[in-house]
Amino acid sequence: MSHDAPAPTAAMQGGGFYNRNSALQAANLGSALPLFLAAAAEYPVAAASPTPFGIADYGASQGRNSMIPMAAAIDTLRPRIGPDRPIVISHVDLPSNDFTSLFTVLDEDPASYLAGRANVYPMAIGRSHFSEVLPVHSIDLGWTSNALHWMSRNPCAVPDHGWGVFSADPAVRAAIDAQLDADWVAFLHARAREMRPGGRLVCQFMGRGPDSHGFEWMANAFWQSWVDTADAGLLSQGELERISAPSAGRSAAQIEAPFRDGRVTGLRLADLATVQAPDPYWDAYRNSGDAVQLGRVWADMMRAANGPSFAAALDPGRDRGTVLDAVTEALAARIAADPQQNRSFNVIVVIEASGAA
Amino acid sequence: MSHDAPAPTAAMQGGGFYNRNSALQAANLGSALPLFLAAAAEYPVAAASPTPFGIADYGASQGRNSMIPMAAAIDTLRPRIGPDRPIVISHVDLPSNDFTSLFTVLDEDPASYLAGRANVYPMAIGRSHFSEVLPVHSIDLGWTSNALHWMSRNPCAVPDHGWGVFSADPAVRAAIDAQLDADWVAFLHARAREMRPGGRLVCQFMGRGPDSHGFEWMANAFWQSWVDTADAGLLSQGELERISAPSAGRSAAQIEAPFRDGRVTGLRLADLATVQAPDPYWDAYRNSGDAVQLGRVWADMMRAANGPSFAAALDPGRDRGTVLDAVTEALAARIAADPQQNRSFNVIVVIEASGAA
Repeated sequence: MSHDAPAPTAAMQGGGFYNRNSALQAANLGSALPLFLAAAAEYPVAAASPTPFGIADYGASQGRNSMIPMAAAIDTLRPRIGPDRPIVISHVDLPSNDFTSLFTVLDEDPASYLAGRANVYPMAIGRSHFSEVLPVHSIDLGWTSNALHWMSRNPCAVPDHGWGVFSADPAVRAAIDAQLDADWVAFLHARAREMRPGGRLVCQFMGRGPDSHGFEWMANAFWQSWVDTADAGLLSQGELERISAPSAGRSAAQIEAPFRDGRVTGLRLADLATVQAPDPYWDAYRNSGDAVQLGRVWADMMRAANGPSFAAALDPGRDRGTVLDAVTEALAARIAADPQQNRSFNVIVVIEASGAA
Repeated sequence: MSHDAPAPTAAMQGGGFYNRNSALQAANLGSALPLFLAAAAEYPVAAASPTPFGIADYGASQGRNSMIPMAAAIDTLRPRIGPDRPIVISHVDLPSNDFTSLFTVLDEDPASYLAGRANVYPMAIGRSHFSEVLPVHSIDLGWTSNALHWMSRNPCAVPDHGWGVFSADPAVRAAIDAQLDADWVAFLHARAREMRPGGRLVCQFMGRGPDSHGFEWMANAFWQSWVDTADAGLLSQGELERISAPSAGRSAAQIEAPFRDGRVTGLRLADLATVQAPDPYWDAYRNSGDAVQLGRVWADMMRAANGPSFAAALDPGRDRGTVLDAVTEALAARIAADPQQNRSFNVIVVIEASGAA
């Protein structure tokens, strides 16, 4: 376990690329959406409140996958709060996030939650959601999808894999678990301040399965594509060893821990479920039989979500586009040659604010 | 006066370039800053308010020039409202604006207004400030610097100059004046809803002088640099004729008009002054005698602020960087060969919300 300083956590690939290559993430959030809408339907609201109704979207990325949940929440809430109470929707992501794509979707896309909905005000907050980013007691409903498996940082170098959770070194895996725990506690502390008493926060992110972490097939295929690209001479062994993507799933026990041991107050863990993740790419492949297309969509999605983190380890003078093109081609070919169904896990967490933070 | 559809209004040049090349704009806002701080000092505030204190920054661009005014406003307000009332600062600009530079300045720059100041929450809103972008009655103090001379669109083609206000065609100049008026009214209507009764809005933008518009020397030099670059074969006459930057100053009479004729209600024009703009580049040149440096800073500033609007008229296949490099070189050489002091005008406007909108 080396102690080279790893690169900081990177945002999703910009220029709208993540928006165009995140169908898996869209399918993932589907399992949490009913709980978010139930929260919108049940949350006690007052039309005469002097404050806007506050919704927060933590880890919004470029916004495409926020349109359906936010539109549905608005449509659930509007009859309950009346036409005159403004709804403010705050989209939180890293400073380096592509907010222009988010606002362009909001402005131009037919799927924008602004289309046909009045008195709704989107905001962007380019700051880490592991700190307080919204005023105290300003959020009635919180939502986060496909985001909380991204850690605030890489806790250590991971020479033998792209993800520390898949390292053969137990010290690396322990460092990952410690970072996951610290980030989860920091996230909850911040939300305990921001949520209005009685407010609800619905979270969907990568979990761990009963027998294994999950995602092994794709994580190994992506990592092997980088190894192959290094073997082909397009990046050095030193660069390969520096690669470390700061993401990992959490087990149910890891999620429950800070509630059980009293490190989090003012929030109640209302619901927690681990479910097998959908695989929309596999479903499409079973219909089409097109293995080349299966390779293409997986490779583009992996590039959109993980390319920036992996490429952050490359030497400053390295042409990132060339390397990412080669890795993407290698991954697409690898999948096309041996199509499989992905096996990974989502956790769905519902948290209630008790206001005692 | 042709009726080709001109390009939409463009944001300032991205990648932080505008942040690094906007010293003139920083000097401009200095004349309005005392009025903004007076508003912060005099505005009646209640520490026990259930809502955050709301500040809006309309036309924030990449944020560099917002740090000093916002920091000073926070420092004026904090002793008055106490430590517990959150201050929300909403930065408004076009969807295409480079918000990553804004949040990076906020996160990393020693001049960030977040540095050493607690309970302050920045937000970004990537929507045109010619419409309502904030909840009703949510803004206590409004600020806009170097932004309102940018129109919502080019009302018509301007074949004979880069700016319609300098066209020889009276129909073009009339179309510009009509657009300036429509935009000003739209801006005021939106602010009349957003401002809390008693709130104050301090505006600094390009005005017009008593005898002439102002900025003629630099506007003509920039336009002539494009003409020269076209003569050198780097862009076509057709592209040159399509160029039109949607910006122009307003006279005092144009600013007063909608208040006088009753088109705006709920807002009161509390103060209006037209002042000659500072020229920090000229001051530096008088100290250094370095005409080449004078040409360089003017050329980079003009590229940062006007390059995107001008380049929007280029053919899709045209390499914009090559053309902008050539224009910037031509402008720098032109200024270095004939250094002058710029003569242009700022207007400073203070508006009070009466709450009757």
